[in-house]
Amino acid sequence: MQPLISRAIPTGVYVVTVKAGERLNGMTAAWVAQVSHRPTLVAVAIAPQRYTHSLIKEAGMFCLNTLPEGKYDLARHFGFKSGRNVDKLQEIPYTHAKNGSPVLQGALAYLECKVEGEFEAGDHTVFLGSVIDGAELDKKANPMIFRWNDFFGRE
Amino acid sequence: MQPLISRAIPTGVYVVTVKAGERLNGMTAAWVAQVSHRPTLVAVAIAPQRYTHSLIKEAGMFCLNTLPEGKYDLARHFGFKSGRNVDKLQEIPYTHAKNGSPVLQGALAYLECKVEGEFEAGDHTVFLGSVIDGAELDKKANPMIFRWNDFFGRE
Repeated sequence: MQPLISRAIPTGVYVVTVKAGERLNGMTAAWVAQVSHRPTLVAVAIAPQRYTHSLIKEAGMFCLNTLPEGKYDLARHFGFKSGRNVDKLQEIPYTHAKNGSPVLQGALAYLECKVEGEFEAGDHTVFLGSVIDGAELDKKANPMIFRWNDFFGRE
Repeated sequence: MQPLISRAIPTGVYVVTVKAGERLNGMTAAWVAQVSHRPTLVAVAIAPQRYTHSLIKEAGMFCLNTLPEGKYDLARHFGFKSGRNVDKLQEIPYTHAKNGSPVLQGALAYLECKVEGEFEAGDHTVFLGSVIDGAELDKKANPMIFRWNDFFGRE
């Protein structure tokens, strides 16, 4: 089922970053969509057991870092370990968005968002965010499009 | 803002179809994401004033038809008029998913979904659907990726 859904629902690949107090973290995610025009709201689905989930709850903010084609190293770096145990941003070049969220220098674009609401959807929480800062960092690159088999092999 | 968000959140382009009683309709949409793994749930944001919104409420089902690259004719056909006034499926080749939703023969893949919940997000309703039928129709084509300027010109 999952490879079919990934094929039927093409999405970007993101590093969702957060700054909660002095703690910085990021995790790879693909379940992101805009959901409202006025106000502008974007939605990101994060599993409650993720460290980033608790940091977003604490910070009331998150930042979507859209990855360009080919940056599998960044996607994997932020995807396959937990920030509870390691500082995933160490040795990764980044700056800060207006409100402090990490912005990866390797990103194609970023959107820093203020949490405006959340709801439970199955095994994930969907955070709704209004865009409070953002920019395109690379005007030429194409976005990475998530393909199940690129990350999880063949079923 | 909108061109930046479209750049930062790459999405597919869909015709969301529905069968409510004997009425069939479809509308072009781009705000779609998976939001849960177990159970498998997908989310689609539809504005309440759309005819398709009321048909989905009535049917309790919808079907995502993922468009392949280049099928701008289908995207525009289903995007720029209302099914209240015209039968948008007339002269468009389609079959039916297991539960009756129209499946466009020009689609890359389809997912027929049962509505499991909904919530309001700004000016849209987000419908959550469990996948009850689906298939890949074209194994070779790449999905169309929504670009703001392809549909709405430059700001």
